[in-house]
Amino acid sequence: MRIILRLKLIGIVKNNFIESTDPLEMRKHESVIIVDQAYEEGLHKIEDHEYIQVIFYFHRANDYSLKDQSYDGIERGIFASRCSQRPNNIGLTKVKLLKKDGKKLRVIGLDALDGSPVLDIKPYSEFID
Amino acid sequence: MRIILRLKLIGIVKNNFIESTDPLEMRKHESVIIVDQAYEEGLHKIEDHEYIQVIFYFHRANDYSLKDQSYDGIERGIFASRCSQRPNNIGLTKVKLLKKDGKKLRVIGLDALDGSPVLDIKPYSEFID
Repeated sequence: MRIILRLKLIGIVKNNFIESTDPLEMRKHESVIIVDQAYEEGLHKIEDHEYIQVIFYFHRANDYSLKDQSYDGIERGIFASRCSQRPNNIGLTKVKLLKKDGKKLRVIGLDALDGSPVLDIKPYSEFID
Repeated sequence: MRIILRLKLIGIVKNNFIESTDPLEMRKHESVIIVDQAYEEGLHKIEDHEYIQVIFYFHRANDYSLKDQSYDGIERGIFASRCSQRPNNIGLTKVKLLKKDGKKLRVIGLDALDGSPVLDIKPYSEFID
C-alpha cells in the first residue's frame, strides 16, 4: 500500500561525501545544511540546542531487502537495522550543531551524502529522545 | 520547492487517542503499531531492542507557522520546536518496545494519534542517537 505525500524540500546537505562511505567515518566530519530561504524563519532559536535531529532522504539509496546481514554477520530485519537501503529511504541522525549562520547550519555527525534533501529538523530532547 | 515522494505505508498506529491531546499525557500510554503484512519480515530481531524510533505522519495536523509561541511562552522557530504542526508533518518518537507479537508491536511512549501512518521504524542506538 502506498501513500503519496507532497513533501517540502526544507534544505540540502553539503559536504565532501559524494559516494557512499562508511557511516562511522562520515560522522566524524562536518556538513553544512543549507535551509531553503522560505524556511529560514523556522530556524529561530535553534542555536539554543547543542544537538539537533535531521530527517533526510537517502536520495541515492538502492533497492532494499527486508532482511539482511549486518556489519556483524547477523541477519536482521530492516526495521531492526539502521541500514540506508530501507522501504522509504528516510534517514535520521542526531548531529551536533556547531554554528548557525543565517540559513546555514554547520553540523558534525551527519551521515548523509552531499546533496541529500532535508525533510525536517527537530531539536534533540533528552526527555523525548 | 516541493519534492513528491511515493512513500510506503509501513504500518498504522492503534491507540485510544482520537483527538489531539497533551503529548506528555499520550506518552504515558500504550499503543500498538500494526505493521503491514508486506513488511512483517522487516521486524526480524527487532525484539532485541528495548527502544525503537518511530517515524510517522501527523495525518491530522493543521496548518503550521514557521515561528510560534511554545508551551513556555517563548517564541521559537518550528525547527527549534517539537510541535506537530510542521512543514512536512513528520513525527519522530523514541518508544519502549514492550512486546512483539507477529506483525504487532506493543509500545509505550508514542505521541501519535490513532490511525497515524507509520513511515519507518529504526532501532534506537545509544551511539547514533
